[in-house]
Amino acid sequence: MLEQIKSICDLQKLDIKQLPTLCQEIRDKLVEEVPITGGHLASNLGVVELSVALHYVFGEDDKIVWDVGHQCYVHKILTNRGENFLSLRSENGISGFPDTTESDQDAFGTGHAGTAISAAMGLAKARDQLGQNHKVVAVVGDGSMTNGMVFEALNNIKDTNMLIILNDNNMSIGKNVGSATRNMSKLRVGKYDKNKEGLKKFLLKVPLIGKPIYKFLKWCKRKIKMGHALNSYFDNFDLKYVGIVDGHDIKDLVYYLTKIRDNVTKPTLLHIATKKGKGYLPAEQDAESFHSVPRNGAHLTKESATVVGETLCELAQENNSIVAISAAMTKAVGLADFASKFPDRFFDVGIAEEHAVTFAAGLARGGIRPFVAIYSTFLQRSYDQILHDVAIQNLPVTFLIDRAGFVGDDGKTHQGLFDLSYLSSIPNVTVWTPCTYLQLRQMIKQSLTVNGPVCIRYSRTLLEDGLSFAKNWNRLSIVDNNTYVFAVGARCVEIAKHVCDRTNVYAVTQIKPMDFALLDSLPDGAQIVTMEENVCIGGFGQQLKAYLASTNKKATVKTLAVDDRFVSHASVNAQMQKNNITLDYLLDILQ
Amino acid sequence: MLEQIKSICDLQKLDIKQLPTLCQEIRDKLVEEVPITGGHLASNLGVVELSVALHYVFGEDDKIVWDVGHQCYVHKILTNRGENFLSLRSENGISGFPDTTESDQDAFGTGHAGTAISAAMGLAKARDQLGQNHKVVAVVGDGSMTNGMVFEALNNIKDTNMLIILNDNNMSIGKNVGSATRNMSKLRVGKYDKNKEGLKKFLLKVPLIGKPIYKFLKWCKRKIKMGHALNSYFDNFDLKYVGIVDGHDIKDLVYYLTKIRDNVTKPTLLHIATKKGKGYLPAEQDAESFHSVPRNGAHLTKESATVVGETLCELAQENNSIVAISAAMTKAVGLADFASKFPDRFFDVGIAEEHAVTFAAGLARGGIRPFVAIYSTFLQRSYDQILHDVAIQNLPVTFLIDRAGFVGDDGKTHQGLFDLSYLSSIPNVTVWTPCTYLQLRQMIKQSLTVNGPVCIRYSRTLLEDGLSFAKNWNRLSIVDNNTYVFAVGARCVEIAKHVCDRTNVYAVTQIKPMDFALLDSLPDGAQIVTMEENVCIGGFGQQLKAYLASTNKKATVKTLAVDDRFVSHASVNAQMQKNNITLDYLLDILQ
Repeated sequence: MLEQIKSICDLQKLDIKQLPTLCQEIRDKLVEEVPITGGHLASNLGVVELSVALHYVFGEDDKIVWDVGHQCYVHKILTNRGENFLSLRSENGISGFPDTTESDQDAFGTGHAGTAISAAMGLAKARDQLGQNHKVVAVVGDGSMTNGMVFEALNNIKDTNMLIILNDNNMSIGKNVGSATRNMSKLRVGKYDKNKEGLKKFLLKVPLIGKPIYKFLKWCKRKIKMGHALNSYFDNFDLKYVGIVDGHDIKDLVYYLTKIRDNVTKPTLLHIATKKGKGYLPAEQDAESFHSVPRNGAHLTKESATVVGETLCELAQENNSIVAISAAMTKAVGLADFASKFPDRFFDVGIAEEHAVTFAAGLARGGIRPFVAIYSTFLQRSYDQILHDVAIQNLPVTFLIDRAGFVGDDGKTHQGLFDLSYLSSIPNVTVWTPCTYLQLRQMIKQSLTVNGPVCIRYSRTLLEDGLSFAKNWNRLSIVDNNTYVFAVGARCVEIAKHVCDRTNVYAVTQIKPMDFALLDSLPDGAQIVTMEENVCIGGFGQQLKAYLASTNKKATVKTLAVDDRFVSHASVNAQMQKNNITLDYLLDILQ
Repeated sequence: MLEQIKSICDLQKLDIKQLPTLCQEIRDKLVEEVPITGGHLASNLGVVELSVALHYVFGEDDKIVWDVGHQCYVHKILTNRGENFLSLRSENGISGFPDTTESDQDAFGTGHAGTAISAAMGLAKARDQLGQNHKVVAVVGDGSMTNGMVFEALNNIKDTNMLIILNDNNMSIGKNVGSATRNMSKLRVGKYDKNKEGLKKFLLKVPLIGKPIYKFLKWCKRKIKMGHALNSYFDNFDLKYVGIVDGHDIKDLVYYLTKIRDNVTKPTLLHIATKKGKGYLPAEQDAESFHSVPRNGAHLTKESATVVGETLCELAQENNSIVAISAAMTKAVGLADFASKFPDRFFDVGIAEEHAVTFAAGLARGGIRPFVAIYSTFLQRSYDQILHDVAIQNLPVTFLIDRAGFVGDDGKTHQGLFDLSYLSSIPNVTVWTPCTYLQLRQMIKQSLTVNGPVCIRYSRTLLEDGLSFAKNWNRLSIVDNNTYVFAVGARCVEIAKHVCDRTNVYAVTQIKPMDFALLDSLPDGAQIVTMEENVCIGGFGQQLKAYLASTNKKATVKTLAVDDRFVSHASVNAQMQKNNITLDYLLDILQ
């Protein structure tokens, strides 16, 4: 059946009774193909019925905004991208996130959490202003509800004619955090749903009156949920609240979505309960492991996150004033062990990067030494807090910034290609860039000796070799000529190592402050190449060039960095190639 | 009485009956001295009783964090800075914001809204971890409640032993926005308080039983507020809610604060109602005008904001698809007229800069042309939203960025010295820097022709002269030598104009993309000076140096920009001097 669906129109021709079968086919496809392409499995299994129901009820002109976006696979399959699904997250293939350049059916590009309601409000107000009449829907997970942007949007929703679907799987990426978010879900199905199934079976067995009673009860339930449900949290906003609805009951979903589409013009929140990994037992039982599955089962033996976790546990054992903070990524940033060993000294604040950083600033001001572990791309959310709360007061907070540089398959929204620029612009901040696991470990320890903010940025994996941390950059080779390569981070250093025989190679360990003494010591006429996984503007190479220019040293500098454009999904290698950060290119320059 | 108070200890020696007199003395001092120093008058008049009560009840070891911070004057007067009060906001004088380097009694530096609860939570958790036992209090205005950070913090407050005081003046900087924030204040005093005064007067006149009845009623009221008050919004968090209490009744304040100090260990929110400008009639009647009063009554005849407002009104008249967005600063950014002329096309979203930008992205994606007007310093909050929601999708949003460059008296937390760096690092973004009002006007119009994000950054005032906007930089002089001055923004251009007789002067109007053709056309051996009000790292001068270095042009470049450190409060002129962005220094270099 799935193969015949080339468009929303094809889907809408189906009888509602066919939808469960369609859902099963989609589920089979996901379970079969996502482990090949790699990607987000559990969350997509959780929204099969929702995605089908949405497209069954809403038309091609209607706009659906998927918050976070990694749960858009079913949507993509239903909007004519099913055939091409095995190209998911590959170079020139379909993106793992909504992408307006890929399809008009992707109403708005997403990646970071908490943006969908704001964006959908914009789409809805634009529609009204332009006198159009399509519907606008934002689909938001319960994890995003911990994010301040969502509150800001809800607080402004007023009379905006739009539907928010709260996809409540009681999980978020790790586990859910916070009192308000707990309250939102107080009415969760849980027990009730188990009873529902029992009651249904029982009644349908009762002859004659069983079925009418069951139908009457169902009718009552729907009326109540549609018209009179209350929710202590959402009732504070100008919202009509409907729920909680079983997000795997496709008939119920179609019923409520149709009712809302046809009858409601004020902002409405439909609260549905779903199960991550639904329909695939291994994923249901361990949704966190199946949140993101690696391409073709590839597994890393060692990651930076492992080193982070081990080192912090060690330090915390000795030093009572060390605490760690994560923003809903405890396991991914390597802090699962720390969290269980030091529960009083670990804080998972939810998808709340702003609060995480200012909370750390408060801790530091109170005499504690906090480590804040947030991916490079998500730390962009905290630019102002790093500047305004940590750096102005020069507070000793260590930032552990994983996924710096190219991130591969996740693409444009998730690249860690801006941190050297945005962090370097902030006074008082020290920026370190390890290229080996040993350096990472040493830097974490060393940061305790710095009386101010320290940012340690690193890629997912680093080099295994024994290169240790020297604040004056690590010299990897001595060659008697005027050529120099300054490489930042593991991948660039790995490339640069290949030219150690013909040029002076340095592994750059500290971006800010720069190793000015070393730069001053370079001979006139030096030929320099810098290498980094960061945008060119404001990055290491540009800062180095500017410094040399200010000293009037006669040197030529060639910068290998990321062009001033966004980098799409592809393998990390392909991304390096596309931006000319390669051995071939380096050899070309050095000739 | 006020003169005798050199410390918290002196204050605590007073009898509670003396406090109203003390409050009156403080009020008199504020009304007399703030118009001389310039600063925030209305908000400080509103917290006189609160500040006195806090310091009367809490000790020197306790930590009080003032959200936003500009309401800290009374606190400063009470903590031994009263004698020096006329140096407020002057160079080397006391800061208009809490500053930990100025006094240990300033527990945490603030400036931007919404940080206090996060910071106070950090202080409280640090205290617990270190086995200390002081109290921690965050004082937050109702305006900050519209900010997402506050939600993120409340959602994490759990068992944190701390007190939040919600200072509800039903105003925020402009007017309050949003449904949740409206709900928070549903129980506001209003009518009730008027009745209270009437009842009190009546009862106290009744012989014998009048006074006991009055006291009994007061006792009842206190018990209820202390133990059983409900608030539909705050009850969603793990908070004990107390309120609403009259924030100008010093005895009530002392009573509740003492009770909470002595008896409560779980997180508590004390909701008080105050009046901005309280006790000074002109400020009570027009709190917005008295929010910030100019030094010695100085008034600007023309501001960039005026031009912004006029131009947008004009454009909106012709073009139906233009809308404007402000983040709680409607009047300050020049949009008061726009808001009243086009109420359906104007959105004040509250202190919610993140939502503002993503909402604009949604509008733009829906075919509308939004203008987002936010001060440079506050736009730091939206770095990720500009990058992730606007720029990746290359959406046509115009950012109107006032208070770029030095801002003078407000100091470290409010300088607009980072925008050229953080905006330039983002692909797809165009950055314009007008130096005349005419240019600003033309750029606003011209931005409509750009199919992507445009950032227009400008200082509070610009030059009056008729210089119009040329994307290739404005040449102000032609001199037959190899020296060039490239000046960014009004103040730098004004300085550079003085050397038009001896050097080639350009007013730089477009930072990104740079005028590469012009740079390419410079002769070898060119001697270049760049001037900008932005930090050096990642700024215009650095980008220019890096570009020239990449072309191997032989040129020397001297950059006049802001050193890699934060800039404290002083006059703008003093700030320019301190950073060597002066005519004298320019003349020195050109010699």
